[in-house]
Amino acid sequence: MAQPLALGIDIGGTSTSFGIVDRRGQILEKGNIPTKGHATVHDFIAAIKVALDPIIEKAGADNIVGIGVGAPNANFYTGEIPNAANLPWDGVIPLAKLLTDALHQKVVITNDANAAALGEMMYGAAKGMKDFILITLGTGVGSGFVANGQLIYGHDGFAGELGHTISVRDGRDCGCGRKGCMETYASATGIVRSAELWLEERTDETVLRTHKGKITSKMVHDAAVDGDAFALELFAYTGMILGQTLADAVAITSPQAIIFFGGLAKSGEILMKHVRQHMEANLLNVYKNKVALVYSAFADADAAILGASALVW
Amino acid sequence: MAQPLALGIDIGGTSTSFGIVDRRGQILEKGNIPTKGHATVHDFIAAIKVALDPIIEKAGADNIVGIGVGAPNANFYTGEIPNAANLPWDGVIPLAKLLTDALHQKVVITNDANAAALGEMMYGAAKGMKDFILITLGTGVGSGFVANGQLIYGHDGFAGELGHTISVRDGRDCGCGRKGCMETYASATGIVRSAELWLEERTDETVLRTHKGKITSKMVHDAAVDGDAFALELFAYTGMILGQTLADAVAITSPQAIIFFGGLAKSGEILMKHVRQHMEANLLNVYKNKVALVYSAFADADAAILGASALVW
Repeated sequence: MAQPLALGIDIGGTSTSFGIVDRRGQILEKGNIPTKGHATVHDFIAAIKVALDPIIEKAGADNIVGIGVGAPNANFYTGEIPNAANLPWDGVIPLAKLLTDALHQKVVITNDANAAALGEMMYGAAKGMKDFILITLGTGVGSGFVANGQLIYGHDGFAGELGHTISVRDGRDCGCGRKGCMETYASATGIVRSAELWLEERTDETVLRTHKGKITSKMVHDAAVDGDAFALELFAYTGMILGQTLADAVAITSPQAIIFFGGLAKSGEILMKHVRQHMEANLLNVYKNKVALVYSAFADADAAILGASALVW
Repeated sequence: MAQPLALGIDIGGTSTSFGIVDRRGQILEKGNIPTKGHATVHDFIAAIKVALDPIIEKAGADNIVGIGVGAPNANFYTGEIPNAANLPWDGVIPLAKLLTDALHQKVVITNDANAAALGEMMYGAAKGMKDFILITLGTGVGSGFVANGQLIYGHDGFAGELGHTISVRDGRDCGCGRKGCMETYASATGIVRSAELWLEERTDETVLRTHKGKITSKMVHDAAVDGDAFALELFAYTGMILGQTLADAVAITSPQAIIFFGGLAKSGEILMKHVRQHMEANLLNVYKNKVALVYSAFADADAAILGASALVW
């Protein structure tokens, strides 16, 4: 018996993954192609078509209700990527139109954090919730806000940039041209930046000193797991900044939960105990002890596909 | 011919106003009673009933679709006022139930800023908007966030406390028990607090020095209108804090407009030029020059009634 299916595509800076997903969140088929190595976005779309045509045929083109796409800076309203700084092509990319023309399906796009939020709401840690925040702690910080069971897109489709709220007034230089954005502290890149700065300024003994100039967030994590006091302090500091900033976000949308995804979230309680402590300490009374801090329920590789596919329903 | 009508009630700390409103926002009847001077909330409800019964009868009880109430801390979901710090009665007030029992009508309640946001969306400056923020700059700062055409209540009904986000880390003591809340700077009370502090710390000549210890926000306004440099600097400082904080709020909900209401908003461009300048300077590029700063379209006395009545539809 035919069942309605969605095609989810997640376009990342390095790799593009895709899958056929049913309404219960089962991934029936999946695959991926490199995002890089295509001279133009048209070449990239042609490569997607080559990879997708067989799995669309296998699923039955008529069973597919539509295609959902998560991509950096993708705009739900316009179907465009206005500024593809994290992708290998310049200018405004009319992504929804290009994919519709190539694949002859209805295409809906949004940014990766919004797609992840939809995926968690339909299939994951936010199932049944109407008010929550999804935070991706990766190279930068992405966020998707859900209120009244709907994503907050904002009037122009660009809502949900918690990573670019100011955590420290006149703080660290951010790639966006401003100073003190949350993501310059509380991301995989941010904790590395803290580590390198502290190594300059301080004289503590730490295993990280042997890696000075080439530290990764994984190194900070491993050192913290081994009990390195300097690394543990880095997590405490990162968690403080994140907790303080989340307390202000809670005062705006009063979510039932905040769901964490991405590389830095994998450090688990090493980070999260500080996030919880500083968030609670900075919450207005009415919000205290009510907001759950939760990890994404998805395996990395599947989350993006599930999120993108959730756009379709 | 009978037309559907709503009854709007605004319960303030001093006065309670009410009115019968049609779907186009015409106030057909209105009146008010003191909020103070009733020993218990039951006495207050009895006084409301005495005042309302004749105007309900005149409008025709059958024409009234429901009663909407705006009140400090009122919770849309529970129908209660959990902490009536600004009202003369202690404890949890089951306001919706008390009014339903007394007046035999469907009753919906929410806090005053949320009611104001609904009023602006139905009849006022936010007509036709689906994404905006309403800010009341009064004794404190209230806020109502609308996204996708719906008020953001949050999972518990307590969303929208922008006045209690932290504008200055470890800043001024706030009545809520924390430090640096936006409303300790950017409210009628906040600008007076700035004035009194600066008079202690500084030696500038200013007409406000003659009022030291008993300054009102109206005095600061009047001095600024007269060109008093100290008063103008107070508005610049207040506008800076407000603008910085609004820039972060924009990054969350990406509103089409921010609508201002309340005593301090009446200072108009004296305040708003600084709010605009500092908001724009602190916005992420994607939001720049897109967010309108707008004044409420309502006369003071009518806004609260219209907002409360808008809850009914």
